[in-house]
Amino acid sequence: MSPTPYRQNSDSIRHSKPLAYLQVLTLEERPFRLTSGKTLPEVTVAYETYGQLAKDHDNAVLVCHAISGDSHVARHDTKDDPGWWDLLVGPGHAIDTNQFFVICANVLGGCRGTTGPNSINPVTEKPYGVDFPTITVEDMVKAQAALLDELEIDQLLAVIGGSLGGHQALAWAALHADRVKNVAALATSPRLTSQGVAFDVVARNAIQQDPNFANGQYYEQEHGPDVGLAIARMLGHITYLSPEGMSERFDNRRFEARGDEQSDFERKFSVGSYLAHQGERFVERFDANSYLTLSMAMDLFDLGGDEETLSAKLRNSKCRWLVISFSSDWLFPPSQSQSIVRALVSNKAEVSYCNVVTPCGHDAFLLERDLPLYGELVKGLLGAENLKTFAPKEDKSVSTTRLFRQRRDYDHLIKLIPDGNSVLDLGCGSGGLLARLREKGHAHVVGIDLSPSAIVECTRLGLPAIQSDLDDGLHFFPDDHFDIVVLSQTLQAVRDVDKVLSELLRVGRKALVSFPNAAFLEHRRYLAESGQIPDMTLPESHRWHDSPPLRLFSIKDFEDFCEKKSIAIHELVALNEKKGEQISEDPNLNADLAIFVISRHGITK
Amino acid sequence: MSPTPYRQNSDSIRHSKPLAYLQVLTLEERPFRLTSGKTLPEVTVAYETYGQLAKDHDNAVLVCHAISGDSHVARHDTKDDPGWWDLLVGPGHAIDTNQFFVICANVLGGCRGTTGPNSINPVTEKPYGVDFPTITVEDMVKAQAALLDELEIDQLLAVIGGSLGGHQALAWAALHADRVKNVAALATSPRLTSQGVAFDVVARNAIQQDPNFANGQYYEQEHGPDVGLAIARMLGHITYLSPEGMSERFDNRRFEARGDEQSDFERKFSVGSYLAHQGERFVERFDANSYLTLSMAMDLFDLGGDEETLSAKLRNSKCRWLVISFSSDWLFPPSQSQSIVRALVSNKAEVSYCNVVTPCGHDAFLLERDLPLYGELVKGLLGAENLKTFAPKEDKSVSTTRLFRQRRDYDHLIKLIPDGNSVLDLGCGSGGLLARLREKGHAHVVGIDLSPSAIVECTRLGLPAIQSDLDDGLHFFPDDHFDIVVLSQTLQAVRDVDKVLSELLRVGRKALVSFPNAAFLEHRRYLAESGQIPDMTLPESHRWHDSPPLRLFSIKDFEDFCEKKSIAIHELVALNEKKGEQISEDPNLNADLAIFVISRHGITK
Repeated sequence: MSPTPYRQNSDSIRHSKPLAYLQVLTLEERPFRLTSGKTLPEVTVAYETYGQLAKDHDNAVLVCHAISGDSHVARHDTKDDPGWWDLLVGPGHAIDTNQFFVICANVLGGCRGTTGPNSINPVTEKPYGVDFPTITVEDMVKAQAALLDELEIDQLLAVIGGSLGGHQALAWAALHADRVKNVAALATSPRLTSQGVAFDVVARNAIQQDPNFANGQYYEQEHGPDVGLAIARMLGHITYLSPEGMSERFDNRRFEARGDEQSDFERKFSVGSYLAHQGERFVERFDANSYLTLSMAMDLFDLGGDEETLSAKLRNSKCRWLVISFSSDWLFPPSQSQSIVRALVSNKAEVSYCNVVTPCGHDAFLLERDLPLYGELVKGLLGAENLKTFAPKEDKSVSTTRLFRQRRDYDHLIKLIPDGNSVLDLGCGSGGLLARLREKGHAHVVGIDLSPSAIVECTRLGLPAIQSDLDDGLHFFPDDHFDIVVLSQTLQAVRDVDKVLSELLRVGRKALVSFPNAAFLEHRRYLAESGQIPDMTLPESHRWHDSPPLRLFSIKDFEDFCEKKSIAIHELVALNEKKGEQISEDPNLNADLAIFVISRHGITK
Repeated sequence: MSPTPYRQNSDSIRHSKPLAYLQVLTLEERPFRLTSGKTLPEVTVAYETYGQLAKDHDNAVLVCHAISGDSHVARHDTKDDPGWWDLLVGPGHAIDTNQFFVICANVLGGCRGTTGPNSINPVTEKPYGVDFPTITVEDMVKAQAALLDELEIDQLLAVIGGSLGGHQALAWAALHADRVKNVAALATSPRLTSQGVAFDVVARNAIQQDPNFANGQYYEQEHGPDVGLAIARMLGHITYLSPEGMSERFDNRRFEARGDEQSDFERKFSVGSYLAHQGERFVERFDANSYLTLSMAMDLFDLGGDEETLSAKLRNSKCRWLVISFSSDWLFPPSQSQSIVRALVSNKAEVSYCNVVTPCGHDAFLLERDLPLYGELVKGLLGAENLKTFAPKEDKSVSTTRLFRQRRDYDHLIKLIPDGNSVLDLGCGSGGLLARLREKGHAHVVGIDLSPSAIVECTRLGLPAIQSDLDDGLHFFPDDHFDIVVLSQTLQAVRDVDKVLSELLRVGRKALVSFPNAAFLEHRRYLAESGQIPDMTLPESHRWHDSPPLRLFSIKDFEDFCEKKSIAIHELVALNEKKGEQISEDPNLNADLAIFVISRHGITK
């Protein structure tokens, strides 16, 4: 690194390029009061906008950036520098700048134009340095909200962000429930894991123990805590990648160092060279005090360590939610996104959730690999805003639920669901049943499916859908959360009948359970005569060996089970599907399909 | 830290206590040649021993320590300081010092008595410091082997180690195949993951960039690179714990700092206080140059990035193996232990493997929580050494394989296995079938089971058993690895029949597959008459809903499947188990159990 005074370096960080589109606005609230009670004499916000604000000011989308990001979320034109989320933001992209007015502001405490530790304190006329107060994610949101006031945007169509940007999105919903219609929170959490905090602590120790840190007042020195900041960044980088991603990248060339670069850091291993490069480049564009400030804000962010606290904090939220996690993200593990979903569900908020299977780790939300999924989900969320009806569309059978679902029993199911009842559909596919129920005026309907594309389809239709495996139980839902839970032709395939039925009857006051009757006359005859197992469940030429193991049971078997488990049977609709008839006489002999209405409580048939 | 000259500190590291039992021996090879070709003028090894060396010198167990360990593996008496593996080593413990002569030596490059960077270089009469050469795990093993020479131990009963100690155990088997009868490798790998190397690189950068590092010649300074070493240790500690372990420990008291201690490091968060404490204590007992040396040796250790290389390196190994991984160990993930197992299996080595399910992360092998499992496994390995026969014992049905196994068909199975054939038993339980086969003289038999206690039982009997889920395929085994693969009454429960049968016929030249025949006369009659599914597979009052889903199929169904898939049927043994009869006439009607002998190739029946 060149021996120019560090102060210049700091300047160059803030004004590295004359950004033609960078707008700067000093907020009216002076001094600017922080949640800690401390104040900043004034706050300037650097931001960029994309697209046109609609006449009614109702198409604004706020994008929030992560710890090392800035306001330059996308290129403004083909000659512009790349933005950090060009993949998602732009004309025709998921966040379509032809439709939406996109705003992205550098966060409070940052070092790219918005007031932060390297800004000049108007009182002392020197950089704040260590005098910059501890700030919180809530303070960042407050500055953004003040910016929107000045832009005369009362309500955001959406707030979208990943990682620390996701923290901001969550804080928006918690603090400004009335100002947000949709929230998309990617790769984020209600608060960092203890492991995540631990990495941040080590990173901050590396910066603060760097002799050039000089207690944060390094701006006049020749060097700042460049080594400490580089080490912090190296460490951060490890946590942004997944172990499998690192293996793919470095396992086959363990010692292939970049020969073309000088470095003060160890470069024996290829992964070390990579980290050295990342660390050294970061020092050129980021201020160590900002890193400390933002990393501490992230560690202090805490919407609750349990779901009760979290749901209380989000209780006023009226928006539609999209929560996306990434399977190999170990810094913000999927279980944390699932906590957010559970808290929202318990508030009866409209929430869709998908866990994107990827080797890309925490960084996945910034990368192209999984764009077809997370991009479509975000696009679906924003697009659903314009839906006037929940068009009942053809079921495209996108579901990959264990059993190849048959939806011939829709009509019968719908007849069994009283008007206005809340409904959970297990294995919702592309939302066929839920859409029909919405059309009929059922406000509170939720789907579950294993298939990501089912979640995309439902999100497009404005139907909340949660990606989940039935065999993991219905952990997203509290007791008695729905009037009706529908389990259509899936009980044959679940691993544990007792557990799944218990879960059904825990979350639903009643359950509709349909299954093929193994004791149907033709099946009995087929086994007796041919000596082979009849192909009763799978009409599309699936044989016993092609499917997952399917348990066979009859109407009588099921009735015996219910009696043993004290499950009340309210109704049995027995059908001969081939003939299209409802069966009243000896259903166990004459029906090929049964639909039971059951509950834990109530009157036994 | 006190402002005493650092040199004293270094002395105190080497001789912190007069260890009554510490023995020191200077090796004969002078200069001591390293694998790099460089030399050390002389090497002194500090070691401790426990128990008595048998007359024949055949009861020696070498225990290898991890990066921050030393020769004090266990207390020598009740007044002695605790050892780092008291749990495992001691009178009556898994590594029983009443039976075995246990040796543990401080590794080459360490700082606890064996020659390392803080030792006095006899040439310069100053500590080696940065002049200490890069060493490898192989060099450590060479020093240990030289120590054994001097102790007149030609062959070790066992080498046992975890983490870097596991690396040493692997290197022993690779380099001194004739000198090792058993190897237990815990929480280890053929080489570090790229993620693991990355953490080490960051840790080394923190040490080397500490201004007090002084290019490694800090021994005469007031302070060494204490900050860098503490940061390295903090980072290490994060990787030794699992995320869930950290959550358990710190989530509910995020800000509970230890108020009683001073620290230069951040102590705002409880996890930060914990790390600061760990880092600062480590500096008092460890030398930074040793840490660099050992961490580099670990990163350089590489028995192969693919299993071909690894199995070639271990080709001469004739010992019995026990490989143990820990489910939440992300520094040495179970998949790496599984690579070792695969490489050994492909060499037809005798290997048992168990993945211990635990929240304790990499540290699990040092902790009490999982001792009942890993301790019993180690004990079983050492105990099996004394077995003269493979006593066919009662099957205790420890198996938790999907299906509750019935072994009534053992006798029939054994009749179908030609003398001397190699056999893989899928769902081996406590080794009943394998033990009978060993008694009959089958040398190459291997079991698979999901249940850890099954692996313990088999290991005790000296039967190699690998913990694995059949539904994951038989990835441990190469093509045509066995003459016979046995799948006894399990096909009903597997997720994918086609895949499992393909795997069976890939790894075995023939397969024996037994299953209950769903078209047995009594079953047909039962369904026809009662309208319920007969309870054909599970004699102990398991009904259709209590088990995992079991597919039902008949002898004819299976024959059709084999025809469709071009699977050759060599033989069918049809049984009426109730009557204890073999069935020849219309087996699909008269048999309740079928045993098929099948193969990919050969003559169709």
